[in-house]
Amino acid sequence: MHNHRPTDRLEYFSDAVLAIAATLLATELPKPETETGLLQAIVREWPSYAAFVASFLFICIAWSNHHNMFIYIRQTDQYLLILDILFLIFVTLQSFTTGLLARHVGKPDERTAALIYHATLVLMTFFYNTIWWYAINKKTLLEEDTDKRLIRSLTKEYAIAPALHLAALIICLWSVPFSILPILFLYVYFALPRVSEKKINKEANSNEHGQA
Amino acid sequence: MHNHRPTDRLEYFSDAVLAIAATLLATELPKPETETGLLQAIVREWPSYAAFVASFLFICIAWSNHHNMFIYIRQTDQYLLILDILFLIFVTLQSFTTGLLARHVGKPDERTAALIYHATLVLMTFFYNTIWWYAINKKTLLEEDTDKRLIRSLTKEYAIAPALHLAALIICLWSVPFSILPILFLYVYFALPRVSEKKINKEANSNEHGQA
Amino acid sequence: MHNHRPTDRLEYFSDAVLAIAATLLATELPKPETETGLLQAIVREWPSYAAFVASFLFICIAWSNHHNMFIYIRQTDQYLLILDILFLIFVTLQSFTTGLLARHVGKPDERTAALIYHATLVLMTFFYNTIWWYAINKKTLLEEDTDKRLIRSLTKEYAIAPALHLAALIICLWSVPFSILPILFLYVYFALPRVSEKKINKEANSNEHGQA
Amino acid sequence: MHNHRPTDRLEYFSDAVLAIAATLLATELPKPETETGLLQAIVREWPSYAAFVASFLFICIAWSNHHNMFIYIRQTDQYLLILDILFLIFVTLQSFTTGLLARHVGKPDERTAALIYHATLVLMTFFYNTIWWYAINKKTLLEEDTDKRLIRSLTKEYAIAPALHLAALIICLWSVPFSILPILFLYVYFALPRVSEKKINKEANSNEHGQA
Repeated sequence: MHNHRPTDRLEYFSDAVLAIAATLLATELPKPETETGLLQAIVREWPSYAAFVASFLFICIAWSNHHNMFIYIRQTDQYLLILDILFLIFVTLQSFTTGLLARHVGKPDERTAALIYHATLVLMTFFYNTIWWYAINKKTLLEEDTDKRLIRSLTKEYAIAPALHLAALIICLWSVPFSILPILFLYVYFALPRVSEKKINKEANSNEHGQA
Repeated sequence: MHNHRPTDRLEYFSDAVLAIAATLLATELPKPETETGLLQAIVREWPSYAAFVASFLFICIAWSNHHNMFIYIRQTDQYLLILDILFLIFVTLQSFTTGLLARHVGKPDERTAALIYHATLVLMTFFYNTIWWYAINKKTLLEEDTDKRLIRSLTKEYAIAPALHLAALIICLWSVPFSILPILFLYVYFALPRVSEKKINKEANSNEHGQA
Repeated sequence: MHNHRPTDRLEYFSDAVLAIAATLLATELPKPETETGLLQAIVREWPSYAAFVASFLFICIAWSNHHNMFIYIRQTDQYLLILDILFLIFVTLQSFTTGLLARHVGKPDERTAALIYHATLVLMTFFYNTIWWYAINKKTLLEEDTDKRLIRSLTKEYAIAPALHLAALIICLWSVPFSILPILFLYVYFALPRVSEKKINKEANSNEHGQA
Repeated sequence: MHNHRPTDRLEYFSDAVLAIAATLLATELPKPETETGLLQAIVREWPSYAAFVASFLFICIAWSNHHNMFIYIRQTDQYLLILDILFLIFVTLQSFTTGLLARHVGKPDERTAALIYHATLVLMTFFYNTIWWYAINKKTLLEEDTDKRLIRSLTKEYAIAPALHLAALIICLWSVPFSILPILFLYVYFALPRVSEKKINKEANSNEHGQA
């Protein structure tokens, strides 16, 4: 039960923060209080709903990736913990930046709000990557039998999110609507079956055979 | 601890989102600030309390069913995860649509609010069913010894929720109060002992005997 | 991992709802926005702080008792689940009734708010007891080696909470301040070492010896 | 599964409260509603962001320490539970005191808000220490093979947080800005590798060897 430095409670705490951050997003949705024209009032608030769905998906992707990453990390240390905390700070800021963006779409400060939104996502996914970079450089933290080619392909795969969010940030300086393109690309990428996963499956199957 | 693709963290994350969504419902209850006549003010807000209880029960039933479903699902993949995320989006929207409905009962936009409320529940329970449909069609995700008759009876059982919510949605186009009927039927159905459960019990008992 | 009908996920879901309900209480605390006299503004709001602490302790006691009860319950069924859900509804209402009470102390509707507050606690602790009553009457749900005297002493112990909350409710009809007395008695009772616990310890020790 | 008095559910409940308290902090951030000058409005609110980050880190450090402490605690009793509950009360108050501080920086009541903020942290970390003091004085609660020198070094290490928060509280009586100094020292201390941890690693390694 009480192992040396298990990753269990780190995963648990991160999962809980991610789940709460995802669920709290809905509390930021604007509540139309109009006596009549409710449907129009809701339709007019479409940016809020789009931003809610986008952020919900970002947090779920972050959760899914975090979950996959810790299949390979077998223990934590002080610095891995600090990097995870920095990642979680930007996760919890999602509800704030999502609300900010939703309230300013189509208004003078749209660009500022979108830049803050994208910047938070760049930092969230960047710190996510630092957890991985730190773990693979300090070999004692990884599961012993982790394949080197798998590590390399996961490193590339994880780096795509901050790269695309940075692209969205830069495009945003010229055009806010076009900054959605890298985001859509990220969703499509996440929905496609990934090379590293096939490798994981193969490896896991051979492990099972080995143990049987 | 670190299995290939366990369903543990998916169940954990879903449970956490469901628990938070259920608990956040109470924060949407209107807070009467009247100096006198508190009881009357609260009684006048009965639709909020009724909507709170109804939505709390929907989320608890969704949790209970989700929990039962994953007894038979032994691993996840990318698409099962995406379907679960789509299910969870509509779970987290409950607090929003419940508040919307509660604030518009007896007001001109009552029907619009009720339609949005029912539509969210149709989608929530529909995506719940897609998780099951996907899992039973991709056999490698199911526990190996799952009985085919059990799968069929669970498929029927799970399909009842979206069917009844759709019925409520359609009735709502004519009459908002009568749209409560399919909901009441759903609660009664949930409270009754179910055929599939008896089968599960029988199967589990025989399994225990087999292992003993 | 995937047992027949384990109590794990029921305990997990209940724990999550209890933890969230306890933490959300703090969001109901009034936020003094005065430019000067912050300390006086906070001191004036003492009923909110007292109500927050009282409700936080009620939820923690409910969590602790729920936790102890499930040491003896080895599986769940449909009706145990429904009773647990009814218990959890009143747990989540705590933040609402606590805010209500805090805002009405010293105002004309103080009694109404206090009666609603006590009534929610009576119902919360009553449904807590129904879980236990149902489990001990349907023997298959209990751990097989549970001592009959232990069951009787736990039944008495658990019944004290709804009895004291009911006493507080009745006293409240005459005097709101005196309704605090049964509450204080409940806290003192919870802080004292309990007979049933000693029995549990003894039993557990002998079990350990038996298994060793 | 159902042990005598495991620490699992205590750890679980505490983790959940800590995770929720950390995530709720973001909901206290002020939401600038200005039509223009969004960036300036946000920059003007810097105390809120600084307070958010500071409190998020305090809760994460508390979680990390709580997690480490329970490596050595193998069972709980009534009083350990009560001390943990007192610790958690002050954890959940963080979102309230953080919001209070953020709203009063640079305003007449800045000192009062800062004193309340520091006092809550003193009490939170003090009750954290009482859990440890109680556990080490009642030997039956500790893991049997816990090294005495390790206990002493952990006792010193845990006492640093309330000492520094108390220092911040006292400095605050003279100067609010300088009260940040002990806080910065606490962060630096937390980021440094600690003596006790090395001992834990060594001990754990030798344990693994012993078991192998």
